[in-house]
Amino acid sequence: MEAKFPSETAGKSIRCKAAVCRRAGEPLLIEEIEVAPPKAGEVRIKILCTSLCHTDISFWKSESEPFSFFPRIFGHEAAGIVESVGEDVEEVKVGDLVLPVVQRNCGECRDCKFKGNSCTKFATEFPHAMPSDGTSRFLDKNGQPLHHFIWVSSFAEYTVVDMAHLVKISPEVPVDKACLLSCGVTTGVGATMKAAQVEEGSTVAIFGLGTVGLAVAEGARIRGASKIIGIDKNPDKFEIGKMFGVTDFVNPTSCGKDLVKRVIQEMTDGGADYCFECVGSTSLMKDAFDSSRPGCGKTVILGMDMHGSPLSIHPFEILTGRCIVGAIYGGVKSKQDIPILVEKYLQKELNLDGFITHEIKFKDINKAFDLLLEGKSLRCIIWMDK
Amino acid sequence: MEAKFPSETAGKSIRCKAAVCRRAGEPLLIEEIEVAPPKAGEVRIKILCTSLCHTDISFWKSESEPFSFFPRIFGHEAAGIVESVGEDVEEVKVGDLVLPVVQRNCGECRDCKFKGNSCTKFATEFPHAMPSDGTSRFLDKNGQPLHHFIWVSSFAEYTVVDMAHLVKISPEVPVDKACLLSCGVTTGVGATMKAAQVEEGSTVAIFGLGTVGLAVAEGARIRGASKIIGIDKNPDKFEIGKMFGVTDFVNPTSCGKDLVKRVIQEMTDGGADYCFECVGSTSLMKDAFDSSRPGCGKTVILGMDMHGSPLSIHPFEILTGRCIVGAIYGGVKSKQDIPILVEKYLQKELNLDGFITHEIKFKDINKAFDLLLEGKSLRCIIWMDK
Ligand SMILES: [Zn+2]
Ligand SMILES: [Zn+2]
Ligand SMILES: [Zn+2]
Ligand SMILES: [Zn+2]
Repeated sequence: MEAKFPSETAGKSIRCKAAVCRRAGEPLLIEEIEVAPPKAGEVRIKILCTSLCHTDISFWKSESEPFSFFPRIFGHEAAGIVESVGEDVEEVKVGDLVLPVVQRNCGECRDCKFKGNSCTKFATEFPHAMPSDGTSRFLDKNGQPLHHFIWVSSFAEYTVVDMAHLVKISPEVPVDKACLLSCGVTTGVGATMKAAQVEEGSTVAIFGLGTVGLAVAEGARIRGASKIIGIDKNPDKFEIGKMFGVTDFVNPTSCGKDLVKRVIQEMTDGGADYCFECVGSTSLMKDAFDSSRPGCGKTVILGMDMHGSPLSIHPFEILTGRCIVGAIYGGVKSKQDIPILVEKYLQKELNLDGFITHEIKFKDINKAFDLLLEGKSLRCIIWMDK
Repeated sequence: MEAKFPSETAGKSIRCKAAVCRRAGEPLLIEEIEVAPPKAGEVRIKILCTSLCHTDISFWKSESEPFSFFPRIFGHEAAGIVESVGEDVEEVKVGDLVLPVVQRNCGECRDCKFKGNSCTKFATEFPHAMPSDGTSRFLDKNGQPLHHFIWVSSFAEYTVVDMAHLVKISPEVPVDKACLLSCGVTTGVGATMKAAQVEEGSTVAIFGLGTVGLAVAEGARIRGASKIIGIDKNPDKFEIGKMFGVTDFVNPTSCGKDLVKRVIQEMTDGGADYCFECVGSTSLMKDAFDSSRPGCGKTVILGMDMHGSPLSIHPFEILTGRCIVGAIYGGVKSKQDIPILVEKYLQKELNLDGFITHEIKFKDINKAFDLLLEGKSLRCIIWMDK
């Protein structure tokens, strides 16, 4: 890759490298691509580092509509620098440190102004293209368009994102730590603050101790939960979990799946105040619900079950005051809440370093897939310039 | 009934009249009964007036366990005066105006002190007897015990309740208005404040405009909702609803049941911020959920489906930020929240008068059943001394 300066490249296409996925489940190929300049309301960013999240894996594996669009540039957790901005972009300027985010936040629509974190700026969803017009900003070396991935596509040296998918953050944060706040860690920590609003002294059960689940533990720790129970089939997760505040551990393999809820009910004298499902399995969602405190337990669903069955709840089980809430991105409003997490990191309240288990070069990106698939990594930082 | 003065009757059994239900679904019989003095932590109250709520009807009709206990004294919405107190009762004294409440609130257990409104003071549930010891304080004229009804049994001139089921209120409130705050109206108004926390400017859809549904409307109006949509098969309910803040009306019979959610989505530009199910039908719960705003809509379940089927929700439908919460008694903590509603009534913020559609004498109590079953009444006040 040649050095690109804003003055040279603004308004022009940039030729650079990207890791292209040509077919579902196949290794990515490092190819030369062309990245168009940003249109109105869009920003082109130079990716500094990116990392792999389970959502990439789910879509990468998926061979069927509406999830499957190939060839495609995956990646949605990253940190970058603004290279150039399209018309009407005033929120960021060239050189700003930014995080691309899947969870849109235009700041202008009814939902952005009012409640929740589901921005409704763009009526039609194009998870494989730019949100404003449904077209691609990427061409391969044969001039064929490449699909975007959930409005980010960070497995490329440059990418174009809509301003609604970009958050400017303090340049004081090391970029690899910043990268973690782009997706998984923010989902977990944010869920304790936004979707759940865990109170001091409350009890928390976390189903699945991957990055999101561990980030939930970290958030619950920060908010003063009195007991943080991790539930995972991998016994190694307890030691790892302790770093993020997990106080107790349940292995469903040893206690018997049907007993998980009873074990948690006993540990919490009736049921956990907050249960988080971080895997994306309907059966675990039910376990989480059943483990929640009858009179006030809140079950927060963070995992996405792409092909799952419906969740069946008897009205009697919920009537006494239980609550089930779905929380994509933890209920976090990107532009409002990510800077709060950045500040918590800078104040040394929030542990981000522990999530980085591996670092690799961009050309070795397929290694990150292997590590995550084998359950060996939490976050593997993929450095673009190394 | 003879006049009873505290000094005369304290510590002794009281002979008085009660409306006894001997068999499921049969008219109540006015019988002479004996009411034992209160044990430790209990209070005997003289009922001034009572009213009939759908929960009485559901249990009155029910012929099967675990709902069916006969002979039984029904009634759970009432206002009364403390006649005498058992040992260790310091919260109320003889002559206080009190409301008996189904929703226990001891103020001491973890749940009372922390979150929700499900008091866990008594481990075992005896919905047909005193909560502390599972025995009855009522004997019929043959000396046979009569079952209590959900810890209140207000269809009697005197009843005994545990202090955890009693709320002292200001004597400034007329007793018939106070009576309404003992159950149905508090459930609905309270749900907007506690379980839902309706915000100013939000949109509200209410499934079922009985007393609870209308009370939800009244609460939503007080909290400044911008649109309050009532859904009911009875077209007369729109005019009645207007008195309690209903701004729009949907009749599922005219628009077609499958279209209800679409009509509400259109009226609210995507879905209502708050949907309340006030009937107790799993199918309506699903309609309510489907009508809720995808990114942040909260569905509050107030109705109880005694024999209902499970509610089936696909994880995808909830993941974007929707929430389902069950709220027995609207999430209201009896001793903390009822006095707030009393104050709102005294400040003329809360409309209670509109709920009283009929008044009858105790001896005509079966008329109240007819009126409610025929859908002709909201609340029928049953006066004990008339
Ligand atoms: Zn992710
Ligand atoms: Zn928006
Ligand atoms: Zn009631
Ligand atoms: Zn309690």
